[in-house]
Amino acid sequence: MTLLIKGGTVVNADFTLRADVLIDGDKITAVGPDLDAPTGAEVLDAGGALVMPGGIDPHTHMELPFMGTVASEDFFSGTTAGAVGGTTMIIDFVIPSPRQDVMEAYHTWRGWAQKAATDYSFHVAITWWDESVKAAMGTLTRDHGVNSFKHFMAYKGAIMCDDEVLVNSFTRARDLGAICTVHAENGELVAHLQKELLAKGITGPEGHPQSRPTAVEGEAADRAIRIAQVLNVPLYIVHNSCIESLQAITRARNDGQRVFGEVLAGHLLVDDSVYRHPDWDVAAHHVMSPPFRPKANQEALWRGLQAGMLQTTATDHCCFCTPQKRMGHNNFTQIPNGTGGVEDRMHVLWHHGVNTGRLTPSEFVAITSANAAKIFNIYPRKGVVAVGADADVVIWDPARQRTISKNTHHQNIDYNIFEGMTVTGVNTTTISQGRVVYHDGDIRTVRGAGRYVNRPTFPSYFDAVKRVAEVNAPSAVDRMGV
Amino acid sequence: MTLLIKGGTVVNADFTLRADVLIDGDKITAVGPDLDAPTGAEVLDAGGALVMPGGIDPHTHMELPFMGTVASEDFFSGTTAGAVGGTTMIIDFVIPSPRQDVMEAYHTWRGWAQKAATDYSFHVAITWWDESVKAAMGTLTRDHGVNSFKHFMAYKGAIMCDDEVLVNSFTRARDLGAICTVHAENGELVAHLQKELLAKGITGPEGHPQSRPTAVEGEAADRAIRIAQVLNVPLYIVHNSCIESLQAITRARNDGQRVFGEVLAGHLLVDDSVYRHPDWDVAAHHVMSPPFRPKANQEALWRGLQAGMLQTTATDHCCFCTPQKRMGHNNFTQIPNGTGGVEDRMHVLWHHGVNTGRLTPSEFVAITSANAAKIFNIYPRKGVVAVGADADVVIWDPARQRTISKNTHHQNIDYNIFEGMTVTGVNTTTISQGRVVYHDGDIRTVRGAGRYVNRPTFPSYFDAVKRVAEVNAPSAVDRMGV
Amino acid sequence: MTLLIKGGTVVNADFTLRADVLIDGDKITAVGPDLDAPTGAEVLDAGGALVMPGGIDPHTHMELPFMGTVASEDFFSGTTAGAVGGTTMIIDFVIPSPRQDVMEAYHTWRGWAQKAATDYSFHVAITWWDESVKAAMGTLTRDHGVNSFKHFMAYKGAIMCDDEVLVNSFTRARDLGAICTVHAENGELVAHLQKELLAKGITGPEGHPQSRPTAVEGEAADRAIRIAQVLNVPLYIVHNSCIESLQAITRARNDGQRVFGEVLAGHLLVDDSVYRHPDWDVAAHHVMSPPFRPKANQEALWRGLQAGMLQTTATDHCCFCTPQKRMGHNNFTQIPNGTGGVEDRMHVLWHHGVNTGRLTPSEFVAITSANAAKIFNIYPRKGVVAVGADADVVIWDPARQRTISKNTHHQNIDYNIFEGMTVTGVNTTTISQGRVVYHDGDIRTVRGAGRYVNRPTFPSYFDAVKRVAEVNAPSAVDRMGV
Amino acid sequence: MTLLIKGGTVVNADFTLRADVLIDGDKITAVGPDLDAPTGAEVLDAGGALVMPGGIDPHTHMELPFMGTVASEDFFSGTTAGAVGGTTMIIDFVIPSPRQDVMEAYHTWRGWAQKAATDYSFHVAITWWDESVKAAMGTLTRDHGVNSFKHFMAYKGAIMCDDEVLVNSFTRARDLGAICTVHAENGELVAHLQKELLAKGITGPEGHPQSRPTAVEGEAADRAIRIAQVLNVPLYIVHNSCIESLQAITRARNDGQRVFGEVLAGHLLVDDSVYRHPDWDVAAHHVMSPPFRPKANQEALWRGLQAGMLQTTATDHCCFCTPQKRMGHNNFTQIPNGTGGVEDRMHVLWHHGVNTGRLTPSEFVAITSANAAKIFNIYPRKGVVAVGADADVVIWDPARQRTISKNTHHQNIDYNIFEGMTVTGVNTTTISQGRVVYHDGDIRTVRGAGRYVNRPTFPSYFDAVKRVAEVNAPSAVDRMGV
Repeated sequence: MTLLIKGGTVVNADFTLRADVLIDGDKITAVGPDLDAPTGAEVLDAGGALVMPGGIDPHTHMELPFMGTVASEDFFSGTTAGAVGGTTMIIDFVIPSPRQDVMEAYHTWRGWAQKAATDYSFHVAITWWDESVKAAMGTLTRDHGVNSFKHFMAYKGAIMCDDEVLVNSFTRARDLGAICTVHAENGELVAHLQKELLAKGITGPEGHPQSRPTAVEGEAADRAIRIAQVLNVPLYIVHNSCIESLQAITRARNDGQRVFGEVLAGHLLVDDSVYRHPDWDVAAHHVMSPPFRPKANQEALWRGLQAGMLQTTATDHCCFCTPQKRMGHNNFTQIPNGTGGVEDRMHVLWHHGVNTGRLTPSEFVAITSANAAKIFNIYPRKGVVAVGADADVVIWDPARQRTISKNTHHQNIDYNIFEGMTVTGVNTTTISQGRVVYHDGDIRTVRGAGRYVNRPTFPSYFDAVKRVAEVNAPSAVDRMGV
Repeated sequence: MTLLIKGGTVVNADFTLRADVLIDGDKITAVGPDLDAPTGAEVLDAGGALVMPGGIDPHTHMELPFMGTVASEDFFSGTTAGAVGGTTMIIDFVIPSPRQDVMEAYHTWRGWAQKAATDYSFHVAITWWDESVKAAMGTLTRDHGVNSFKHFMAYKGAIMCDDEVLVNSFTRARDLGAICTVHAENGELVAHLQKELLAKGITGPEGHPQSRPTAVEGEAADRAIRIAQVLNVPLYIVHNSCIESLQAITRARNDGQRVFGEVLAGHLLVDDSVYRHPDWDVAAHHVMSPPFRPKANQEALWRGLQAGMLQTTATDHCCFCTPQKRMGHNNFTQIPNGTGGVEDRMHVLWHHGVNTGRLTPSEFVAITSANAAKIFNIYPRKGVVAVGADADVVIWDPARQRTISKNTHHQNIDYNIFEGMTVTGVNTTTISQGRVVYHDGDIRTVRGAGRYVNRPTFPSYFDAVKRVAEVNAPSAVDRMGV
Repeated sequence: MTLLIKGGTVVNADFTLRADVLIDGDKITAVGPDLDAPTGAEVLDAGGALVMPGGIDPHTHMELPFMGTVASEDFFSGTTAGAVGGTTMIIDFVIPSPRQDVMEAYHTWRGWAQKAATDYSFHVAITWWDESVKAAMGTLTRDHGVNSFKHFMAYKGAIMCDDEVLVNSFTRARDLGAICTVHAENGELVAHLQKELLAKGITGPEGHPQSRPTAVEGEAADRAIRIAQVLNVPLYIVHNSCIESLQAITRARNDGQRVFGEVLAGHLLVDDSVYRHPDWDVAAHHVMSPPFRPKANQEALWRGLQAGMLQTTATDHCCFCTPQKRMGHNNFTQIPNGTGGVEDRMHVLWHHGVNTGRLTPSEFVAITSANAAKIFNIYPRKGVVAVGADADVVIWDPARQRTISKNTHHQNIDYNIFEGMTVTGVNTTTISQGRVVYHDGDIRTVRGAGRYVNRPTFPSYFDAVKRVAEVNAPSAVDRMGV
Repeated sequence: MTLLIKGGTVVNADFTLRADVLIDGDKITAVGPDLDAPTGAEVLDAGGALVMPGGIDPHTHMELPFMGTVASEDFFSGTTAGAVGGTTMIIDFVIPSPRQDVMEAYHTWRGWAQKAATDYSFHVAITWWDESVKAAMGTLTRDHGVNSFKHFMAYKGAIMCDDEVLVNSFTRARDLGAICTVHAENGELVAHLQKELLAKGITGPEGHPQSRPTAVEGEAADRAIRIAQVLNVPLYIVHNSCIESLQAITRARNDGQRVFGEVLAGHLLVDDSVYRHPDWDVAAHHVMSPPFRPKANQEALWRGLQAGMLQTTATDHCCFCTPQKRMGHNNFTQIPNGTGGVEDRMHVLWHHGVNTGRLTPSEFVAITSANAAKIFNIYPRKGVVAVGADADVVIWDPARQRTISKNTHHQNIDYNIFEGMTVTGVNTTTISQGRVVYHDGDIRTVRGAGRYVNRPTFPSYFDAVKRVAEVNAPSAVDRMGV
């Protein structure tokens, strides 16, 4: 099938250009002004709107079993909601239980993800350590297109890694050419504070942020960065929510270290006053980790994006509905951690990022799509509107308005943390693998149409340079090329 | 004329790919694997080497009249030397004398530049202020493709701007959509220290760095940044040589300000021990402003490039030969300030940047070419190997070695600050406007073949967004898109 | 006359001790537990309260002629109000008009100050430059006990110093062993913004903070610091009001530079919302420079005190009553700049500093008294309760409460920026020169009783060390001993 | 016995004064100019030299059992060597083995210390955790004058605390009003690097610094600081050796946290080139943890002292002679960690600190004596020359020179890390408890004359203020009063 997008302005991370875009099958085959429509091509009139690479959400948890329940959003409903909002790829997480065989877990998640409507990939969490885990990391990178491993520094007694596991896994990842990612919160302190708070009789959602102050996140971010520095492995810190972790990243990058930072749309826009909401349900809806933060943190995180110290935006989309949240009615530590957002990320970032002058449209593309593609080594297959790239494209009308609401969203969750927010700048059309899957309210996603995306590991700089010199065959010289 | 580069690996700022490159006339017309040679095309066998955008040196002073003499390198010899080293475009400076009509100066420089062998453009210095200067800034941006204005904060009693001129010019530039650039040294302090040193009997080249300590540069950098912040205009600081100015830029960027920093190849690699050389001539050869700095600064500047706090590299190529330097034999303040490097920049940066693992090849392209093109608004015409771009391309053999020397260089200067440095990674072929102007020692530049490159001003973000929404015609939405 | 303070706890900057204090004449003659009262001594029962050195306010402007009017508080009323609040010494400013003979101005201010009730001293402002000014600086340090010179970087067209004056004066001060102080705001930018705002029709008090954003202060602070660094002279920055100038000081101190920072009680506690008060008079009452700042700055300034980056607290007490403020009714730039506070400083700092846990009582003494005495070289004559020190002492009841109000204050001004603030911790007794000048509501100050305090210059470290070695006669080895 | 020091200049942390000092028994009883000698008093002619409080070395390990051997210096020889160098008090460490009863360890160390010649005290290390340890902390603070607990974050598999022990112990210390101290190195990373290096065949002393890079220290410093911040307990980090840990402290202090930093004389003056010494013995002599560092760190540490970010200087005096060092001949991880310095600290700091202009003499007193006394709550009993203070005093001749050497030192160790260093400024006389224990080469220390010094815990600020208000009996209001 052939598709021609006419009359738009292509916005990539590096430049903007009035140009038409020709798609043939699942690939972009031409970008340029005034392209002629091949015979039989469907023509989409962009009407002067912006044509951008589809969003990549590098942090979601579809149908995750967690804290005694299962996230309500599955891979089909979740990728569909994403598509409506302009996101055409997610990277989800395989999370083995401690002592669970890692490959078994991997295959379990692959099975669940068969129903996805758009392309997807998986980070794999390392939650424990022995020789089998070490071997599995090799298998995953070699045979299964996994180039990133996740480590939880929180959740003591469950999936938390202590320093010994971190050191073992980071070392292994380095040797394999993979990138390490961490959830940075000091689990020991969290556990201590939870116990103290409960002992004082603080059992409601307001206890949640008190048990996870920003210092707890800053500590873990710095620790992971230092371990990565010593072991010489690139590091990606997920969902930075506060000044402290941003400072840790900023310090490291200014010392020349390869550290990357992700920020969630929610942490950029929602503050910790939500935990003091008189309605327990509303407060509980916002229980996630790291928690929402005092206002000063939001402005700092925006500046982190502007300065290039944070490179990617995500959602940590992990939906638990009200009845699930009520599992922790008498004890905030039992409230399932997580909330939604995969559908809304692009819209709220455009509105609060571009319309305010904080970000240029090109920077918007960088932080919603291109940078994630580069860091996780799928660029320029993903993350750019260019010849040869996958035809994952959105058409964006910067003048249109809409209001976000649980009543109209397509996420399988019964509230929305951006409820009532009116945004200017709306996705009108989503193209995935060359097919229109969303157009102006009309949802056309197909269960199971999504493909698993292999992500190759990174050769070292020296290997790459050496290979160039010796055998003239560099394949991915620009490791970590953000 | 048609040219096909076969068998290379294209390195752009955002990715690397094995691909052939087809050039037709002065434009790149195809980039992809296994391209067929059109009939009549000349085929260049890249032999597995790297194919990169030609370098842009955004800071040169060809045939500059300065301190009672004239720089020895003219636009033809200078652009030719650049071409040999892989640089296919320079941005030079129009520098009116105080009270000189700005347009008159502009046309004088345009006249001199007619002899250039490769493409070029001009920043225009604002050295004084009245209504005519204000009007000239309008004329230059509107009719002459100038989008950047330079301000000297040093050289008291000559071309130095005081704060009043800075405020006036920055305000005007902002209103015009131009970018401001500064030479950041506090001229008052320099003048004071020069006087003190001469009074103490310090008259040799060793007095030069003593009269311009790093604090003098740090002060001016911070002042320019704050003025730009208050007036809301983007700022580009030329030739940052020290920790202090890097810190000022880093602070500002982390606060979300649009500030850009340039570093010279010389400041990255040469330290201030040169001023203590027993041979007066050798010491004097290195007299330039800002001076070379203690070693700790070099490592910091490299980290600034790695962290993205510095975006561009240049040379401040401004050649004065030994007899010219001797004008200051009894008084270091009379030694003409300046030295060469346009030919060597790419080589020394590759060797010390990429071969050491500090920079990836893609980052090398960013700091030698793409970032300058973006900041000065000529990307993607320049700075990228892509369809539609100007055919300014180099072929780079990362395995080849050569030794830099005044005896073999093509610069019109009788010494070389990189004398004796052996580099691995050599430019083998330079293509300018689709023509091979250098190949393996064979120089084919043509006097006068260079074109003046117009650089449009930047629409404001809001204007751009508004225009997208209203009339669907953004031309350069991604202002400042680095 | 002999006075024995019994039953109190002495709080000095370095320690706290239950001790009685014996005063004979104007000096402290004994400090220790259970002192016996000499025959004829008056005994003051401290009743368990704290006995601390009297406050030193190093920044006041009594009866200052400024902006076409004269500050309403004179030296007698001002020092009396200070005494009520626990302040026993002020350092005011001699401010020559441009081109006015500096010695003439000095003698004028000395004449005005004859009426002071407590001890005082003078910083002298350098507002212009020629050989006579240079000579006067020598005379003042040698013959008149002046060791500090003030420089205004704001007030363009009036008393502003440009860089040339700064460099000349700083150099001269260094050679004399004096300390330089600056009012740090970039006057060029202020003038530009004032003009722009008035042109836009913004004429009310809300224009005042808009014309003096924090960047304007940060710029000037950094510039003064760099000039002082290059010239190697200690620097004291008055009334730091914002994060930007605090950062500049912090950076410099961490580089080992001798830079000191003062903060006003008002800037610690009042934010910029006052300028949006619907009552013009109320808004205008707060017009001072630098202006009050957004809230984030207050917390940062407190942290600056806690970290030792700011060493002193002052008031910039410069009273203009409502009718005076109305001179700028149609033009905010004509509102006389200044407000009051000399009476309230100690109380608001104790309440918001010590009662909140930010500062220990010893740190309170440091920032209200001892540090100013050290920096301006009158310690341990002033700033400590110790044998041999001047008997300037307060007795402080940490449990008593009172509410600040214009209705009850003793300052000659018809409003109070701390109006309605209830503080815990109250000065009950003030002793100046060994005499009780305030006790429990009873004011006993005497017009003209205050003495001019000579402040010797600082020998350089090397001079001092050398002298120790050679002639065994150090007099003030610990220059800048904070 | 009565002693009068005549004709000297008293240097305290806060001021300098020509004054005589009268000592009666073990206390100072008068300080002032021209004191008369009481009948029978011995008169010491200071001859114009400086009279300063004796040094306090807050970090020594006399006769420590460690790594299979015992430190060669015992409490008598060590305190005697200290006295020769002007140090009149040490704070050593009780270090229980894991699972050893803490009180038993405490009493063991108290027994060893009976032979000390000058006053001393003990920090107690927490090396494991159960209820008995928790109880012992209470006993020690209540009944044994211990107010500081030490935690090793390195030495995995031996005395290392994991985060759980840290959190438990810090919480307990907070509740008791004690201060926590840490040895900051990430033991997990050290263990990993040791294993890697040995596996690579790196077995010599050069492996030692490679196994403990600065990032390892920076990580642990930041972690300890964050844990202390979350738990709200003051923290003291011992032997900061590098930029990374200094940055962590600087960041925290600027955020208002009560964090203190110690630096060793050795780390200020010796760099890591020692580990590349061709003589294995010489290299091994320098094996201690943290190791000596690249040169840039030394200048940074000096600046940390100047800026007040580091408050104390120590030696970590822990002597292992050459035969002991050779235990690690084939494996650097078996070389006993430690070296000497208690005799030399004051001299090298004066020479490199005061003579260079980095520190004033008063600052020298602060960092060698007064600050340690304040932080560990024995000021003004120790750390100042003042009436009522212990008569621990030194007379210092700033003009005299001597050369440091193992051949002349009094430490029980067969090498000296400052070998051959000639210093200007020499201790001529040491007075301990009112007795001359060293004078001009004549050593008069007495075995067992030293006393154990009780150090009371710190009331909280709020407790203190409340007590002032309610019962008028503050004993140490100025907690953490540096």
